[in-house]
Amino acid sequence: MDLSLCFMGLGSVGRELIKLIDRKRDEVQARYDLTFKIIGIATGKHGIVFDPAGIDQADALNGLQTDRAWPSTEENRLKLIRECAAASAAAATNGALVEMSPINRATGRPALDYMELALNLGMHAISANKGPIVHGYRQLRDLAKKQGKACLFEATVMDGFPLLNLYRECLPATRVTGFRGVLNSTTNLILTLMEEGKSFDEAVKHAQDIGIAETDPGNDIDGWDSSVKVCVLSNVLMDADIRPTDVDRTGIRAITLDMIKAAQLARRKWRLMCTAEWVNDRLVAKVAPEEVPANDPMFRLYGTTSAIQIRTDTLNQLTLIETAPTPAQTAFGVLADLIAAARGHF
Amino acid sequence: MDLSLCFMGLGSVGRELIKLIDRKRDEVQARYDLTFKIIGIATGKHGIVFDPAGIDQADALNGLQTDRAWPSTEENRLKLIRECAAASAAAATNGALVEMSPINRATGRPALDYMELALNLGMHAISANKGPIVHGYRQLRDLAKKQGKACLFEATVMDGFPLLNLYRECLPATRVTGFRGVLNSTTNLILTLMEEGKSFDEAVKHAQDIGIAETDPGNDIDGWDSSVKVCVLSNVLMDADIRPTDVDRTGIRAITLDMIKAAQLARRKWRLMCTAEWVNDRLVAKVAPEEVPANDPMFRLYGTTSAIQIRTDTLNQLTLIETAPTPAQTAFGVLADLIAAARGHF
Repeated sequence: MDLSLCFMGLGSVGRELIKLIDRKRDEVQARYDLTFKIIGIATGKHGIVFDPAGIDQADALNGLQTDRAWPSTEENRLKLIRECAAASAAAATNGALVEMSPINRATGRPALDYMELALNLGMHAISANKGPIVHGYRQLRDLAKKQGKACLFEATVMDGFPLLNLYRECLPATRVTGFRGVLNSTTNLILTLMEEGKSFDEAVKHAQDIGIAETDPGNDIDGWDSSVKVCVLSNVLMDADIRPTDVDRTGIRAITLDMIKAAQLARRKWRLMCTAEWVNDRLVAKVAPEEVPANDPMFRLYGTTSAIQIRTDTLNQLTLIETAPTPAQTAFGVLADLIAAARGHF
Repeated sequence: MDLSLCFMGLGSVGRELIKLIDRKRDEVQARYDLTFKIIGIATGKHGIVFDPAGIDQADALNGLQTDRAWPSTEENRLKLIRECAAASAAAATNGALVEMSPINRATGRPALDYMELALNLGMHAISANKGPIVHGYRQLRDLAKKQGKACLFEATVMDGFPLLNLYRECLPATRVTGFRGVLNSTTNLILTLMEEGKSFDEAVKHAQDIGIAETDPGNDIDGWDSSVKVCVLSNVLMDADIRPTDVDRTGIRAITLDMIKAAQLARRKWRLMCTAEWVNDRLVAKVAPEEVPANDPMFRLYGTTSAIQIRTDTLNQLTLIETAPTPAQTAFGVLADLIAAARGHF
């Protein structure tokens, strides 16, 4: 069985995905009788490449140094999806869009358009981009169901650690009644660095220097990234329908070194906590710094590690902790979705 | 879609499963278009009942007070499986054996025979009983594959917490390189009680009084139950082929109150740790008490709670912690398997 892939975006996750697909080629073939073929890649700076015979992995990793590339226009991106869908259909294989472009937090577009187009053309739609999910989850879910295709996005929360696939495949007939977790790597790293004595500004600078925090760190430290993840989880696991502005949001800018030290004296730590629960048919979703005691699993989260506790009506509480995430782990979330899509397990 | 169930055993897990199936009836119907019908129940003391029209839930929970019961003989158990398979086939539905009889640690039989018979007759085979899995995993797996049926057993380790289904559905193309965990509730409860000042004998007695430890507690405190679980996980997650006697096994009988107190002074705790890892193509599997430091997630495991850390070649390390397991949670593991079997997700 062949699955033809169309990459929207080729940043660190996309590059790791290409390497992971190559590393796992024999295993995927042997276990699932499945072969991936990348037939389209749209980048921001190196143009858009379409090749129904398959794009060379080394070419892609070297920045698509080809004179066959189309200009990186919006129109050409839509054209790429249509060409990939047509090529998959012509080869009687399945196609999948792999959405990995940068997030548009306000609308989720144009990524949401790409995913809808792909599903409408009979492709699976897989996303590592939270934007289309937080803004269009219900419509994508319903469209995917109508088309009999997968719309999966494991890589959007906790870097590919099984959470959304776990809910769908391993917690059947289960109601999630609430969750709490530390879901943003950058803020957790900053708080950890402050526990080691750095000031807030020094910690932010360090996180930027090692490539974890962005040049404008507001998306992380003001709690926006956490809020987006709270929305994805609330809407998917708890059947809510909220947007980032619906989340009661406080970032970590007000956390001082004195507060960190006072917490340490009391054997506590500040963590940027994401929570959601149903209270009288209303979903209460919140992102805010919280002092956690030493017996809380969130206490032990050093650096970029994330964790979540999920309360359910079947298994009491599940605690899931990832360790030292990397772009390769996020890429694994995409690979897991692609294999689930190909197996029809969605 | 109907799934006809044949229960082997009706202990606390079986009774909780009947209640859970009833509680989740509408949700299972709505989400998966699936209806369960219990058509056979084999008990140890209350005979064996077969009713292709469906056994009444209240009857079953009240101890099958029926004069239609067959005597609880080995021959009648095999007959029950054959009758259930024939009734499922006649009704053009799928059938599933739900194996919940007490474990035979030495051979896994007769439960292994029941599962083989069920698969040979075209039924799915689901087990909460570790015996047949630890002794017959490879043959059951191959037979199930040949028959196109499910052989699933989530409830055998960590009380229904997603672990085996998580590996199969959410960690595709992943090599598990090792694991460590606390997998036996009774010993962890005993160690917790000793940390509160009880002697070993008092702690064992207390665990027996509240129904956690058995009259002969050796299965737990000598590490046999842990060893059986290590085998299940090693054979399924790591493609090993070991038996409980292959595990380097030390129980907790030698742990004294003085050792517990000395550990506490050093901010450490004794835990009965299960470990397995590949060392030069040899699987090294061990069960032994281990002093864990305060920053180890195993440090925080109070009472009957279990936890596991799984190392992989795709996601680095996953840490999974259950909370306060009950027979209802074990029953959920069986329900999850039944739904996966019905959906064809195996």
